[in-house]
Amino acid sequence: MALKTTEDINKKSLKHNLQNSGLALFTDLYELTMMQAYFEEGMTQDAVFSLFVRRLPERRNFLLSCGLDTVLDYLENICFEDDDISYLASIGKFSDHFLSMLRDFRFTGDVYAMPEGTPVFANEPIMEIVASLPQAQIVETFIMNQIHLQTLLASKSYRVVTAAQGRTVVDFGTRRIHGIDAALKAARAFYISGVAATSNVLAGKKYGVPVTGTMAHSYIQSHEDEASAYYAFVQQYPDTVLLVDTYDTLEGVQKVINLSKTLGKKFKVKALRLDSGDLYELSCKVRQMLDNAFLNKVEIFASGGLDEGSIEKLVSSGAPIDGFGVGTSMGVSNDAPDLDIAYKLCLYAGKGRLKLSIGKPVLPGRKQVFRISEGKQDIRDIIVCADENFQGRPLLIPVMEKGRRLPESIVNLNSIRNYAKEQVANLPSRIKSIAKPELPYPVDVSQALSDYQKKVEEELTISVK
Amino acid sequence: MALKTTEDINKKSLKHNLQNSGLALFTDLYELTMMQAYFEEGMTQDAVFSLFVRRLPERRNFLLSCGLDTVLDYLENICFEDDDISYLASIGKFSDHFLSMLRDFRFTGDVYAMPEGTPVFANEPIMEIVASLPQAQIVETFIMNQIHLQTLLASKSYRVVTAAQGRTVVDFGTRRIHGIDAALKAARAFYISGVAATSNVLAGKKYGVPVTGTMAHSYIQSHEDEASAYYAFVQQYPDTVLLVDTYDTLEGVQKVINLSKTLGKKFKVKALRLDSGDLYELSCKVRQMLDNAFLNKVEIFASGGLDEGSIEKLVSSGAPIDGFGVGTSMGVSNDAPDLDIAYKLCLYAGKGRLKLSIGKPVLPGRKQVFRISEGKQDIRDIIVCADENFQGRPLLIPVMEKGRRLPESIVNLNSIRNYAKEQVANLPSRIKSIAKPELPYPVDVSQALSDYQKKVEEELTISVK
Repeated sequence: MALKTTEDINKKSLKHNLQNSGLALFTDLYELTMMQAYFEEGMTQDAVFSLFVRRLPERRNFLLSCGLDTVLDYLENICFEDDDISYLASIGKFSDHFLSMLRDFRFTGDVYAMPEGTPVFANEPIMEIVASLPQAQIVETFIMNQIHLQTLLASKSYRVVTAAQGRTVVDFGTRRIHGIDAALKAARAFYISGVAATSNVLAGKKYGVPVTGTMAHSYIQSHEDEASAYYAFVQQYPDTVLLVDTYDTLEGVQKVINLSKTLGKKFKVKALRLDSGDLYELSCKVRQMLDNAFLNKVEIFASGGLDEGSIEKLVSSGAPIDGFGVGTSMGVSNDAPDLDIAYKLCLYAGKGRLKLSIGKPVLPGRKQVFRISEGKQDIRDIIVCADENFQGRPLLIPVMEKGRRLPESIVNLNSIRNYAKEQVANLPSRIKSIAKPELPYPVDVSQALSDYQKKVEEELTISVK
Repeated sequence: MALKTTEDINKKSLKHNLQNSGLALFTDLYELTMMQAYFEEGMTQDAVFSLFVRRLPERRNFLLSCGLDTVLDYLENICFEDDDISYLASIGKFSDHFLSMLRDFRFTGDVYAMPEGTPVFANEPIMEIVASLPQAQIVETFIMNQIHLQTLLASKSYRVVTAAQGRTVVDFGTRRIHGIDAALKAARAFYISGVAATSNVLAGKKYGVPVTGTMAHSYIQSHEDEASAYYAFVQQYPDTVLLVDTYDTLEGVQKVINLSKTLGKKFKVKALRLDSGDLYELSCKVRQMLDNAFLNKVEIFASGGLDEGSIEKLVSSGAPIDGFGVGTSMGVSNDAPDLDIAYKLCLYAGKGRLKLSIGKPVLPGRKQVFRISEGKQDIRDIIVCADENFQGRPLLIPVMEKGRRLPESIVNLNSIRNYAKEQVANLPSRIKSIAKPELPYPVDVSQALSDYQKKVEEELTISVK
């Protein structure tokens, strides 16, 4: 991955400062009440919190980690503004002493994390935060929110890209993705997983994701007839994509063919878009019509309620479709709209920590994940204690020290996209596939970590009684 | 609903100005390319766009409209900043002339909408925008995004509140709701539908939603033992809620009982929280233990993967649970994470507009929805042409004129919540229920509107050929 200079880092931090400021109160109230209690009790020793997903959704063979950049930016910049303090005072649960401490609050901890674009499996720490207990506690809500969102969406869009087998996939999701923040982060997460472009202009501006678009039915409808709409649009945008299903798809295509005859060499239309009806049948007919009119270079672009399942079906049945616009199903990850993500205390004051709540195990202490390969192929992972050494690639790297981002953590978007592509390429084919594998990817826990877990559990079980 | 003075309105607009600024580029690229084409073609006459949901999700008997305030604020404030213009210039699709027009762009149209908190059914316009075609086009993406999100979430949380049958429901969703914007808007939408409070502190600050919280497992884990954690927390927050499932639920409860004996009259703990295991069985046992210890006033609060289904089951089986913390399932509306929402051109330059795309009908022209009651109960709706008069309550009211909010559109949050409660109360019980009704709520289209639709369709069908 391409590293940046310190100057770049500072520039980036400054820019981000403006983006993620004012978010200190984007937290659950209990983080703040617990934080006050920790201070009152003098419980400010170092804690380790581990962020992981307890189990993969039924239809995900792995997740693509995403959201680290947002989190590090937040950690670097979190602070309480005057009006935050006044609002907290109005709640009536906080002492003046605590509130005045909040004025000087900064996050000064260390962070170890998987780089964005790393494939990740159940129970593997995506990120570990090492910081004074109150600091590590208050940042829980924001960290979970962002890693959850961005990992969820990158993992879903990977499947759509995979189903398209090299055909272009474009993000059309903004109108139904859940809110402003999600739509922007989605465009970035999708791009990391291999989506070619987004329709969201602000995401293009903010993140440098390529932007693209076609035309809407309203443009056709507002003209006196479809043919004049096509003619007018092509005057403005000769190499555009024309939408042909507003009234009757095949009639629409015929009008484009007529236009090509009228314009002759000036006809540069790149593609036609189908947005309704039986896309297999229509695409075959449309391809035939275009080819018969010697418009072999005009591509067919499909949209309208597509997901990885319908795209796979179209591709495998040989539908002559060159690209897909995918909106809602990808944008809300509709077959798995959430992950069972957790941010759990696993060490405090040098002691491993667990909970024993039914069905929600925690691995204690600071950890590392090694990915083990045979030749070029990754074959299994092992979760180990941080100080263990194993053959294989360690996946958690230091990305923040004493509250400042390390240069390794500043990676440009295209490098993340390339890294993700490489990492996914190394996975076994059954895991890369969108079908459920007979054998899931093996993730083991080292003997030392397992022994440590047992030891902490036994100590707890004794003390509980 | 309580109206505000002009001073309030101005204050509110100013505040909002800061919130929704910089969002002009939060739009699909095609809105901008179409907009430029409209200007070039001189197509700037008035258009009407209608926002509606094509069909209700399987498990929704109605939707609760939400998001209008955000949309009107956006429309009042949308403008292109210098850096927006520079970014657009860099795309290479826009003329200098168009970009300089964008500098002066303001939305100056009219808006008719259902007030937030109005129950709405399939195909009913939630909002109609009347504006110069380029203006009405460019705002499509943002309007859809926000009405979709907020209506989706208010409609889901209504079901959770209904299942709880008067027991408190609290929003614990922030960590897994899709992003920052969605989590904030969720807290507001949930409150409108009857949720009592949110854990999201920033939502409390921004919208005045009551904030609340308990304690996390990490607080218990970081202490040497559970009993000392309880003791320490109660020193800070005597009337708090204690989490009892970190190690062993019933042992945890016993420790709270012991604490009550130690503290005597100083014991003010309000409730215990169960967050895992069989909540029915545990709540019965815990209630028994508390009652036996004369702690009848200590309530039981449950959380952990709850949704309207599991809550209904607990309530109907008589589980002694007094309140529910609901997170992910409500926060991502997991059984229906999207709505088939559409924003469609239905009039331009005085002519009704349609599209004929398969399965996606549009009702032409400006419309109104009348809700017809018998006694106190609403029995059916009828969608009519805007100039028709019907018996019943018209649901679409003018909320913006020439780009400025009308006083009727400025409503405080508690008034919206009360209005929603009243409106829902008037619905037939089968529709209010979370079960699927044998007979859906009837929504008709008036003869005049139906005739108009046929006429526009016929004209189109002729012109298509």
